[in-house]
Amino acid sequence: MRSRYKPWAADLIAANPEIVIPNPEQQKGKWKEVFGNDKPLHIEVGTGKGRFILGMAKANPEVNYIGIELFDSVIVSALEGVLETEGGIPNLRLLRVNGADLLEFFEKGEVDRLYLNFSDPWPKTRHAKRRLTYKTFLALYESVLPENGEIHFKTDNRGLFEYSLVSMSEYGMLLKDVSLDLHANEPEWNIMTEYEEKFSKKGQPIYRLEAQFNAN
Amino acid sequence: MRSRYKPWAADLIAANPEIVIPNPEQQKGKWKEVFGNDKPLHIEVGTGKGRFILGMAKANPEVNYIGIELFDSVIVSALEGVLETEGGIPNLRLLRVNGADLLEFFEKGEVDRLYLNFSDPWPKTRHAKRRLTYKTFLALYESVLPENGEIHFKTDNRGLFEYSLVSMSEYGMLLKDVSLDLHANEPEWNIMTEYEEKFSKKGQPIYRLEAQFNAN
Repeated sequence: MRSRYKPWAADLIAANPEIVIPNPEQQKGKWKEVFGNDKPLHIEVGTGKGRFILGMAKANPEVNYIGIELFDSVIVSALEGVLETEGGIPNLRLLRVNGADLLEFFEKGEVDRLYLNFSDPWPKTRHAKRRLTYKTFLALYESVLPENGEIHFKTDNRGLFEYSLVSMSEYGMLLKDVSLDLHANEPEWNIMTEYEEKFSKKGQPIYRLEAQFNAN
Repeated sequence: MRSRYKPWAADLIAANPEIVIPNPEQQKGKWKEVFGNDKPLHIEVGTGKGRFILGMAKANPEVNYIGIELFDSVIVSALEGVLETEGGIPNLRLLRVNGADLLEFFEKGEVDRLYLNFSDPWPKTRHAKRRLTYKTFLALYESVLPENGEIHFKTDNRGLFEYSLVSMSEYGMLLKDVSLDLHANEPEWNIMTEYEEKFSKKGQPIYRLEAQFNAN
């Protein structure tokens, strides 16, 4: 998700290194120390403006969260959300990095769950490799998750969801839960993203799945 | 699918034993002889009034088809469709039997592909075992299909489709193709069932998948 250019974003990010972690490759294998506890770590690749990850972190204080987003102009909104929260959000950190570089930031098994929400659908077949559920990305996620680690994925994009079901199945992942209209029977634990609210208000179905890597 | 009682149905069925095969358990392992050729055999479990299987048989003369349906009052419509076709439909047979008894009628590997269309959703959790994509049915299908045999499944029922994706994944099947709105981009080879036309006209999405049993 790109946003308009915000010249002040880089400065605000640099001024809050305890929230948007600078040089996160130096924390690889040490995230429990960064958070100062042993809680499980859930990350979101493509955090956007952060509504999902902020909501999850507030709702689930027993879990540590890291939101990953490439663009200053976008992640700064998530940072502002943290700064506007009274007392801050102690179980949340943000990384302004490329999700494709995940291995530089996490050891195998250091991430307990991975969220993908409303990822870019890259609808053209020749761009399939850029989809965040393409096999090379699944291999990347597998390499930071534990055995039987899970991906939880939401999107409004039918083509991307169809593709992802097949891609995950071909990769040998187990589909544990699938919803083809999340808001027809919305679970009370669901935290909406910006996109999710926008599209579900238009009556478009939101698709969701939980998939698990196989240990064998 | 039940239909109103048709006292004449049993007579019409009995009068056409070359189309609705009596005592099909006697043909187990001999279906190539029944058809008089070596073409692949595709079967539909729950054929209903037969619009799909008749359409497929007419469109694909290089394949043999068998439609399976439990109720006289329903299968008789499929029979009438064959009788009304000039020259008949030489590559189609019908069985008035219970799909749960598949093993009585086919040897392992004798069926090359299995179709399920608009199966009863059995929405209550306590009835999950009756869904035609419950694991015991998948095991049944596997036992008449070859290694890497495929199930092609269509439904308008979201709950049944969500359930089936997970059930097939848990069974170890590979999802090869998934469509969450078949008619948004209808393939030219698609043959509509009675239900399919009715529900897609209402604007409801039709879900479809192709899943493969794994050889390992």
